[in-house]
Amino acid sequence: MRIMGIDPGLATMGWGVIDCSLDAPEFVSSGIIQTLPAESLPQRLARIDSGMDELIMLYKPGAIVFEQLFFAKNVTTAFNVGAARGVAIARCARFTDALYEYTPMQIKQAVVGYGKADKQQVQRMIQLLLKLPEIIQPDDAADAVAAALTHFQSGRFGSLHIMK
Amino acid sequence: MRIMGIDPGLATMGWGVIDCSLDAPEFVSSGIIQTLPAESLPQRLARIDSGMDELIMLYKPGAIVFEQLFFAKNVTTAFNVGAARGVAIARCARFTDALYEYTPMQIKQAVVGYGKADKQQVQRMIQLLLKLPEIIQPDDAADAVAAALTHFQSGRFGSLHIMK
Repeated sequence: MRIMGIDPGLATMGWGVIDCSLDAPEFVSSGIIQTLPAESLPQRLARIDSGMDELIMLYKPGAIVFEQLFFAKNVTTAFNVGAARGVAIARCARFTDALYEYTPMQIKQAVVGYGKADKQQVQRMIQLLLKLPEIIQPDDAADAVAAALTHFQSGRFGSLHIMK
Repeated sequence: MRIMGIDPGLATMGWGVIDCSLDAPEFVSSGIIQTLPAESLPQRLARIDSGMDELIMLYKPGAIVFEQLFFAKNVTTAFNVGAARGVAIARCARFTDALYEYTPMQIKQAVVGYGKADKQQVQRMIQLLLKLPEIIQPDDAADAVAAALTHFQSGRFGSLHIMK
């Protein structure tokens, strides 16, 4: 099965795709959808919308996994980041019902082995698990791959978190 | 020109369409896209996504006008309502650059004449302005028509608020 991970954000939406046809996960691709603060909110959301469509059509994932957002700063930030996340979820939900979500702590727990790992540790562990010549960059793309890996692990150990 | 108004929300997304080919606005249609709390967030956002697409394809508006949201309660509410608004904005922005936004106070000011009018006064005034046999219901559909009317008025008086 092909799993796509998403690390949602307005300025940077990380994505990563892995294949789990055998017992071991295999890296397919990763990257970010980037939008600029100089653009209007409609322009930024439209780019996320079309970017998600392109990724979905290109990779046709069997499951899509979001890193759950914790949005502390303030209501306005939550509003705009929530908009970006909402657009990504909506485009994915038009394509498949197989949407999942894990907290950052669950992802670190699954990938590194403990929930308070730092970004570098996550990147190094992904590199090891997927036998990559280098770490995945930027951070947001690595986090998206980590979310996809978490779902793979979660499936093996029987605790899938369907998005509510 | 055909103007579509949107009163964004997750449970109820109001919409209304008016034509302004002559000097006076003419009512075309209005309604709501409704989603249920029992559904998952992806299901609800997917319904808003497809509902917006249907409306845009059906009415092909020359301008789309959003009522600006004020989201006081808490960050989680802002997050989910922001997601619904974001989905609506993204689908509109894929269709047109002519996206506008007015505050509830600006809308009441434009439609009723003062910014603290209540919902009933807005509904009655819309009925008068558009020469309708009855008031527009529900509230959210009426608010969407009011947003569209505000843009019509705003255009006449030269103060269009492009969405940033």
